[in-house]
This record gives sequence, structure tokens and C-alpha cells, in this order.
Amino acid sequence: MDAINLMEKLNLFSDHYHPRLIGELNSQHLKIAKIKGEFVWHSHEQEDELFFVIKGWFNMEFRDKIVRVDEGEMIIVPRGVEHRPVAEEEASILLFEPASTINTGAIRNDLTHKKIDRI
Amino acid sequence: MDAINLMEKLNLFSDHYHPRLIGELNSQHLKIAKIKGEFVWHSHEQEDELFFVIKGWFNMEFRDKIVRVDEGEMIIVPRGVEHRPVAEEEASILLFEPASTINTGAIRNDLTHKKIDRI
Repeated sequence: MDAINLMEKLNLFSDHYHPRLIGELNSQHLKIAKIKGEFVWHSHEQEDELFFVIKGWFNMEFRDKIVRVDEGEMIIVPRGVEHRPVAEEEASILLFEPASTINTGAIRNDLTHKKIDRI
Repeated sequence: MDAINLMEKLNLFSDHYHPRLIGELNSQHLKIAKIKGEFVWHSHEQEDELFFVIKGWFNMEFRDKIVRVDEGEMIIVPRGVEHRPVAEEEASILLFEPASTINTGAIRNDLTHKKIDRI
């Protein structure tokens, strides 16, 4: 039960679209990630996902609209909804989602992280 | 599926220790609150709680230690652990906890909010 400093945690890594686990509660995972460029279109069958922008901004693309998410803002993506994060410049985000969540949803490719790295 | 701006939401109210619901996912509630002064000692039998400081700072008191939580930091309080938030000056926090959580845990007093206000 110590304070968790997001900026300190973010300084521990530099790669993109590689989430790190920083906390767990109620079977939910709290992760941080740096993102830059386009992720892959995907959806999660069973999991809603929260994205909170710690630093920078990104666009959350849906099939029918694009939502810009700025620093200090968050967006909740309900289960089953196809989405693709796209960051023109590097952004740092906090993710909150069930422990069962796979980052690329039903898709498996080079971006898929099956093992979760805790920092 | 729109962006949720924390500062805009915080500007909608001014009372202390009265959390507002700003989002829901995976049976978890995302709330914001302004806090000032001492809350009541309490614990939650079934729920872990996350406190993230959006603005300001506060002390999370435990029976055996005090943890200062600064802006940009968070703390996870596991279920069953007695705790008491104390804010010397007004702080704004984000709470993440199961939808079943009662703010004062097993205690019922004037601080208890049974109905959750959504903003």
C-alpha cells in the first residue's frame, strides 16, 4: 500500500504499444503504455476498456467516427465495439480493463502481448 | 463513446466527500470527488479501491502508517483494510471501485451516500 507515481513508472520504458502492469484490484488490471502510430483494428468480446491520457493525445477510431482524447481525458470502449487507437505523436496512457484482456482482442499478431510485464 | 474530461466534470460541483459517477465498465464504477478534511475510518469487506489524485494531494491514513498521495499518484486500498483519507487542503480525486461499493464501507453516518449521483 504505497503511492504509485505514473510519471516515474512511465520513465522505466520507452517502447510503444507494450502495456505494463502497475496495479491490480477486483480482478481488473491497471496498465500504462506509450503509444505512437496506428494500432490494429480489434474488439474485445467480454471486456470493456478504459483509456486515460496521462500525456499527449490520441485519436480513438471507431468504424463510424473518430474521437480525439486529450491529456486529462478518458474514453470507455464497450465490449464488442471495434476500435483502433492512432497516435500521431507519442502519447502516454493509462488502461483499466479486466485481467483477462488481450491487447489485440481476437486478433493475434506481432502486437499481441500474451505475457504481461509488471513494473 | 465520447471523451470524458475530468476537469470539466470537476467544475460541475463543489461539495466535499460526495463522489459523482462519471463512467461504468465491467461492473466497476468510475467516480470523481473533491475532498477536504478528515473522512471516517472504514473498510470495505468485498471491494478493493483505487484513489488517483487529479489535483492537490492527500494523506491516506492506515492504522499503522500514513501514505502521502500527490498529484499524478494513486494508491490501491485492498478489501478489508481500514483506511481514512485526510486532506489538509482541497484535493480532487478519481475513484475506481466495484459498483457495489458504499463510500463509508460498513459504517453508516452523515457521510454515507447510498444513492449515486451521475454527472
